Amino acid sequence: MSEEPKNAGENIVFIGSKPLVNYIKSIMMQLNKRNAAEVVIKSRGKFISKAVDAAEVSKRVLEKKGIKIKSISTSSDSFEKEGRRTNISTMEIILAAQQSQ
Amino acid sequence: MSEEPKNAGENIVFIGSKPLVNYIKSIMMQLNKRNAAEVVIKSRGKFISKAVDAAEVSKRVLEKKGIKIKSISTSSDSFEKEGRRTNISTMEIILAAQQSQ
Repeated sequence: MSEEPKNAGENIVFIGSKPLVNYIKSIMMQLNKRNAAEVVIKSRGKFISKAVDAAEVSKRVLEKKGIKIKSISTSSDSFEKEGRRTNISTMEIILAAQQSQ
Repeated sequence: MSEEPKNAGENIVFIGSKPLVNYIKSIMMQLNKRNAAEVVIKSRGKFISKAVDAAEVSKRVLEKKGIKIKSISTSSDSFEKEGRRTNISTMEIILAAQQSQ
């Protein structure tokens, strides 16, 4: 009776301080080996540039397999830091296979 | 008889190495004073994170005026550097007023 979406929580790649190639490998593994329909690339703050690099490289490599950028969205997280309200930008890029190709 | 779009080439803000606040001011000026329908925020490489910050802050400040993120797209530029083919990620964020509000 579970309403959980397919692969919930499994097809997410969080971009952090590791080398770019690590994240590209994770993305490719999700899309290739596990045959996931899509992968969600999440990033925050200064790692957003790296997330775009990871998405662009993965798209280029997997283009022949019909992998495209399905959506890009940004938002902000607000939190208290040393008594001050601070905001950090967040980004979510979804890479997915085009079903029609 | 010109087919040129309104404000062509004028409503673009390129994000670079200046302080974030400079770009936020440029974006606000475009949307407020010049009454442009939209502003295009362009960025490349490591400046992409700053572009998202600029867009998110501007959106937050101008939310009451109906300014929203209309679209986000990424791409890559390919060029020759020291005999090697190099790619750089690029991003374009369009901030625009919602006509219906």
